[in-house]
Amino acid sequence: MARPAALEAGTLTELKSILGRHLVTDADVVASYSQDRATFLTPGVAAVVAMPSSTEEVSAVVAVCARDGVPVVPRGAGSGLAGGANAVDGCVVLSTQRMNRVIEIDPNNLTAVVQPGVINADVKKAVGEYGLEYPPDPSSFEFCSIGGNIATNAGGLCCVRYGVTRDYVLGLEVVLGDGSVLRTGRRTLKGVAGYDLTALIVGSEGTLGVVTEATLRLRPKSHVPSTLVAFFGSVHDAGAAVAAVRRTLVPSLLELMDQRTVRAVEEWKHLGLDTNAAAMVLAQSDTGSESPADVARMVELCEAEGATGAVGARDEFESRMLVQARRLAIPAIERRGSWLLNDVGVPCARVPDLVERVEEIAAATRIETFTFGHAGDGNMHPTMVFDPTDPSARDRTQQAHDEIVDAALDLGGTITGEHGVGTLKRSHLARELGAGSIDLFGKIKESFDPAGILNPGKAF
Amino acid sequence: MARPAALEAGTLTELKSILGRHLVTDADVVASYSQDRATFLTPGVAAVVAMPSSTEEVSAVVAVCARDGVPVVPRGAGSGLAGGANAVDGCVVLSTQRMNRVIEIDPNNLTAVVQPGVINADVKKAVGEYGLEYPPDPSSFEFCSIGGNIATNAGGLCCVRYGVTRDYVLGLEVVLGDGSVLRTGRRTLKGVAGYDLTALIVGSEGTLGVVTEATLRLRPKSHVPSTLVAFFGSVHDAGAAVAAVRRTLVPSLLELMDQRTVRAVEEWKHLGLDTNAAAMVLAQSDTGSESPADVARMVELCEAEGATGAVGARDEFESRMLVQARRLAIPAIERRGSWLLNDVGVPCARVPDLVERVEEIAAATRIETFTFGHAGDGNMHPTMVFDPTDPSARDRTQQAHDEIVDAALDLGGTITGEHGVGTLKRSHLARELGAGSIDLFGKIKESFDPAGILNPGKAF
Repeated sequence: MARPAALEAGTLTELKSILGRHLVTDADVVASYSQDRATFLTPGVAAVVAMPSSTEEVSAVVAVCARDGVPVVPRGAGSGLAGGANAVDGCVVLSTQRMNRVIEIDPNNLTAVVQPGVINADVKKAVGEYGLEYPPDPSSFEFCSIGGNIATNAGGLCCVRYGVTRDYVLGLEVVLGDGSVLRTGRRTLKGVAGYDLTALIVGSEGTLGVVTEATLRLRPKSHVPSTLVAFFGSVHDAGAAVAAVRRTLVPSLLELMDQRTVRAVEEWKHLGLDTNAAAMVLAQSDTGSESPADVARMVELCEAEGATGAVGARDEFESRMLVQARRLAIPAIERRGSWLLNDVGVPCARVPDLVERVEEIAAATRIETFTFGHAGDGNMHPTMVFDPTDPSARDRTQQAHDEIVDAALDLGGTITGEHGVGTLKRSHLARELGAGSIDLFGKIKESFDPAGILNPGKAF
Repeated sequence: MARPAALEAGTLTELKSILGRHLVTDADVVASYSQDRATFLTPGVAAVVAMPSSTEEVSAVVAVCARDGVPVVPRGAGSGLAGGANAVDGCVVLSTQRMNRVIEIDPNNLTAVVQPGVINADVKKAVGEYGLEYPPDPSSFEFCSIGGNIATNAGGLCCVRYGVTRDYVLGLEVVLGDGSVLRTGRRTLKGVAGYDLTALIVGSEGTLGVVTEATLRLRPKSHVPSTLVAFFGSVHDAGAAVAAVRRTLVPSLLELMDQRTVRAVEEWKHLGLDTNAAAMVLAQSDTGSESPADVARMVELCEAEGATGAVGARDEFESRMLVQARRLAIPAIERRGSWLLNDVGVPCARVPDLVERVEEIAAATRIETFTFGHAGDGNMHPTMVFDPTDPSARDRTQQAHDEIVDAALDLGGTITGEHGVGTLKRSHLARELGAGSIDLFGKIKESFDPAGILNPGKAF
């Protein structure tokens, strides 16, 4: 266990006076708060973990750090996959885990006000008691925080119909880099007063401010979905079916798993998936009485594109089992060795080309790679598994990762669909956006965080 | 007709060399391009109208203006209602009307690439040929431009289900204040690489850059909607019904017209609307085979809240007639005298309180005011009609306008839901957002437009 980095005595004393025992200096705890789930990356060495319980405490901590030039790394639940919450040397890790309350639910206005540390699933549960829904559903929804979702503009399986986190954030309370408190946005469903700072802060990975409160948009609970599963002899057929479905109707879920991923899940859980198929497509429609007809239409579309099998789930149990098969992809892969999950996006119709390129890259680098993800959005997660005891495997994994990112860009895509840039993708950003954008990012960052202390070295 | 303002001879010569006969100096034309539909406001005196046909020409014009310190006022179709496209003294009005092409439609990726001057309805028509839909539908959709829609983050009647313009803009090409060309965003449906400059520019009212191209997100054509009309003896009952509908399902349209507005439409068009009702609510559902059941449910909800009449439209003809009744509100009011349309938002459940406050303000100022709008979003348009020959009427109209804006803020709302701040609402912005936000707006503006030439004095 690395020793925590030292803080100046004056800084430490002042932070202790603000937080008392909620300023944590224990080496084990500091280490465990210094890394997110991107275990492939090596984090920096933090000094302390600050666990404020209020906006006032966050503001006071940030103000001290700004004055003393100490980096602040905001941290939600640590479920990120791009190193966005990884410590930087000498930083204060600012954990929002004690700020985990649902402050208010207004069913007549379809809004909820929450603290950043609340777990996504807990928001869903709380609003569900009013017959309402908070749609964003990253795979980690049972253990990721709303603050982290906002920092990365997290996606999920619902996005193909319901959009991403940004679409559900109406307003924010944010502590800026000088410790001042800014309120952005509104409680109304529409509003165009001034520049949309809310949209700017969502997805900024903690580099513009520490979110201390969010006003979320809710919707009435959706209907129970009907589910389709289809298997294909080629990824191109599967991709053509996905594109046909997208052109025809609006599914509430549209996922693809390649053969390797299907096999990894099947080997582990024995669900009866077709392990000979090149790809499996999973789709749902939640349009109420229309949804069985939607699934029937999707079956037809899949068959027209050459599905070797396409069938609607018989009941809600089977439907849940199939979605579970998809949700098990990451844990099924995780148990096979050390892993690095990639997150890239391509125009929807180019998903098969991406999968093909990934296979070529995997073969050339000799790194087993599992591809699955949100095909309906073109947002895929090629995940590399390697033997940590093989000295060259780590380098080849990095190489495969980088080549997959390049492949996505070559296909007109993006280096990250929903996980963020973190530290993992920083070197790729300029190729996607160009120097002009990154220059503007720097100026915007300086406006929000003149001392440059907020999550330095992340996002861009 | 005011004489156009003069430009320095060198500036004029250079602009002419870029644009030839598409640099317009004719006094009548310049005057007609100097004002949007906010006729209540007095525009500045422009120097010339520039009508570039390409990004290169926009870039060259802006570069010359930046060098010579000449303000540039970007202009779409001039359909704005807040003075956002009104000339400022000595400016170049930069009209995008010649950049009106749909460049590309990609049905497999559900995207369209368009120029800013294309009319909203023409985009709808072009993508409709592929069985696709571009949802945003401001009331002016038949004569407003996509560039203007982007500048104001325009809303419309569809927003309650389908969201606003920002939700459909994936990427932009923008000429910044120094004439440089920036590309933002992506062609993929999801993406989180860097700060969301696209979302920042949408709604920035031409103060951060001139949009020269936009990549739009499309969706499959929605089902033909079913329609409900309901009349209420009190606005509070109508508001309670709106809130009950919002909590229960997701209508594709949810509008309210007060008695005055219903009477204005009925007096003109004799559609058989109930002119004794205090309010009329119009709702649609477009969920396919589910939608008649949705309408039946909405009828029940309206009746439970005391509707004096609530009925589903018998057929598509009647359905269209009812929507037409709502779309006729503005022209029906326009024909009664000089008018000033307000655009405010409140939390959905506070709409009745807003309508009540508007009635009090109208009585106190003796300015007849018609209230209608997107009740499902809480976004309402109290519209004042006054006699332009009455010397005090203009002042009382301004007073009524300002008091309505204050009332919206008192109810937890916003000064503008979808029309923008323009020049009309500038003085109200600080009360909504506070000095911190406006300070950040200034810094952001400076990053994009260091010379401060882009639509100065607008938006904030």
